[in-house]
Amino acid sequence: MNTSALVDVEDVRTGVDALLRDHLATSRAALGSAYGADALPLLDATDVLLSGGKRLRAAFAYWGWRAHGGNPAAPTPAHHVGAALELFQAAALFHDDVMDNSDTRRGAPTAHLAFAARHRAAGWVGSPEQFGLSAAILLGDLALVASEDLLHHGLRDVPDPTTRRRTRDIFAQMRTEVTVGQYLDMLSQTVPWDDDHAGAERRARHVIRAKSARYSVEHPLTMGTALAGGSPEQIAAIARVGLPLGEAFQLRDDVLGVFGDPAVTGKPAGDDLREGKRTVLVVRAVAAATPAERATIHRDLGRLDLDDAEIDRLRDIIVGTGALASVDGLVDELATKALADLDTLDLDPEARTMIRRLGGAAVARHA
Amino acid sequence: MNTSALVDVEDVRTGVDALLRDHLATSRAALGSAYGADALPLLDATDVLLSGGKRLRAAFAYWGWRAHGGNPAAPTPAHHVGAALELFQAAALFHDDVMDNSDTRRGAPTAHLAFAARHRAAGWVGSPEQFGLSAAILLGDLALVASEDLLHHGLRDVPDPTTRRRTRDIFAQMRTEVTVGQYLDMLSQTVPWDDDHAGAERRARHVIRAKSARYSVEHPLTMGTALAGGSPEQIAAIARVGLPLGEAFQLRDDVLGVFGDPAVTGKPAGDDLREGKRTVLVVRAVAAATPAERATIHRDLGRLDLDDAEIDRLRDIIVGTGALASVDGLVDELATKALADLDTLDLDPEARTMIRRLGGAAVARHA
Repeated sequence: MNTSALVDVEDVRTGVDALLRDHLATSRAALGSAYGADALPLLDATDVLLSGGKRLRAAFAYWGWRAHGGNPAAPTPAHHVGAALELFQAAALFHDDVMDNSDTRRGAPTAHLAFAARHRAAGWVGSPEQFGLSAAILLGDLALVASEDLLHHGLRDVPDPTTRRRTRDIFAQMRTEVTVGQYLDMLSQTVPWDDDHAGAERRARHVIRAKSARYSVEHPLTMGTALAGGSPEQIAAIARVGLPLGEAFQLRDDVLGVFGDPAVTGKPAGDDLREGKRTVLVVRAVAAATPAERATIHRDLGRLDLDDAEIDRLRDIIVGTGALASVDGLVDELATKALADLDTLDLDPEARTMIRRLGGAAVARHA
Repeated sequence: MNTSALVDVEDVRTGVDALLRDHLATSRAALGSAYGADALPLLDATDVLLSGGKRLRAAFAYWGWRAHGGNPAAPTPAHHVGAALELFQAAALFHDDVMDNSDTRRGAPTAHLAFAARHRAAGWVGSPEQFGLSAAILLGDLALVASEDLLHHGLRDVPDPTTRRRTRDIFAQMRTEVTVGQYLDMLSQTVPWDDDHAGAERRARHVIRAKSARYSVEHPLTMGTALAGGSPEQIAAIARVGLPLGEAFQLRDDVLGVFGDPAVTGKPAGDDLREGKRTVLVVRAVAAATPAERATIHRDLGRLDLDDAEIDRLRDIIVGTGALASVDGLVDELATKALADLDTLDLDPEARTMIRRLGGAAVARHA
């Protein structure tokens, strides 16, 4: 099964999407009655971003919950956790796209560009760029606030206060960690290149763990586990599965950021190279490159105006140095370890199978 | 008593500041052990912004709570609400300063400039401006998340679920409203000037209510009321005091943004004129101006390079048209109405006096 089919099992996508749609409809009614049509473009933009999501995080949360005894006949709290995760992801993307200066997200112009274009097309007063930037910041803020609200509504109906607290604490920790991780990612890209390749790899792996690995897989799984009433030991055990799976997921993402098919990823070819991301993939290429190749990478990485031929040259270096193969190997190694650990846990067998499949799809995906 | 003395009554400032300090210390320990020193500048910047706050919102929350029976011997939940409000305010300021392109906040460089300067001074790779912008976005996100966490911790010890829910619902509504209000504010500044002066005034008043009036006074008061177990009727009644007081507060802020003493406000003279804010003050000046004066306002308002003489010319127009006097009159009218309404409510007498004093200080302040 591909990712899309997997998130449909037990109607996870349908349940989560219904909550997201409800949230948007309620917000639309509230904003419409308070302010007329003026604020509605904010909700339209949120809708567009949300509708492009794969719901992988929501599915990991759901199956983490099912794995620890969550009752599929009463899935509403698990759907709320999933919807909260998707909204948090949307918030992170709105803000990341501003910080990364990205033009395209999920095949459409990023929010800051779309709002700048709206300003320009209307011939409004002031700077279209500043308007777009500001709108994207506010969109992220709104999604961040909404993510908290959805989680809160989901937890309201959970009777046990310890369960509520554990679930919420993971969410709180996750949000801080992702935000700080994003800062560390930026910071890692400000350091001049040097010959400490081991240090560069350590930093790149560190950024992955802080910024994305945990919140892609580990935190969804642990939130689901906590929501099902899982013990701290059960939460820690599933985290040991989730972290390497999340790292593999992000390493795969880094490969797609350089080699992904734009028609499938919804992003321009080689976008990560233009953004200058110092991923494990790039760092390993630098470490194994000839002096001439290394000079090319140092010069071209992060140039926003790279053309297709220059992108191809960088790709050739990444392949030729063996960096691509070695990262593919690392992805396999991490995924294999995670799935072996998964087998040692005492979980609902159906849910275990689903976590295995979701993990496999996440690291083998093309978009 | 001035504002500073008022927030010290019953040690509100001390209690709130202790929670904010605890939050920063806990975050510092957590980030330090996870990531070393790299992420700590984020906490330093949060500390700087928080330490400049007047704690007016926290004080309104505390006295709203005391007014409805909150026990001064057990103030911790009220302090948590206050700390949450101060952190939310910090989040809004971090992001506002990016959106408004502000250089100075509370007498110091704004966060995006401070982080850009850090990048520049260190001779790091990449764009200092983009680094500063990104850091300020992340700082706002962190403060937004922390505000929720502080509220949540405060409400954990409140036994009645209805009280918890009512308090939290106001906070949730406030955060969405302020964010949308900020968008409407931006939008109102994109419209070309026309002769519909009544429409411009309506829009300016609308923005005040959405963006700042409610969250300066009304929401702090209503959150305090809800936290004390106040009924929906009591919450609605104190809101009718808080809204006009908040409007008066913001109108006073608009006056200070044009006429305030930089040594007291911590912002450059006439900053709001450079930022092009279409406040009630400016809108009334436009409405009452001669054609030549109006042309000057249309041309100069929002010019980032306005010099002192040009600022003075705009100020002269605002005074000469009677706009300043009429806004001062409106401030008095709103405050008088609010305080008259306050007298009709059944409140703890000491708390009523404090709300009256805080309201008076908020609308008469110089910074």
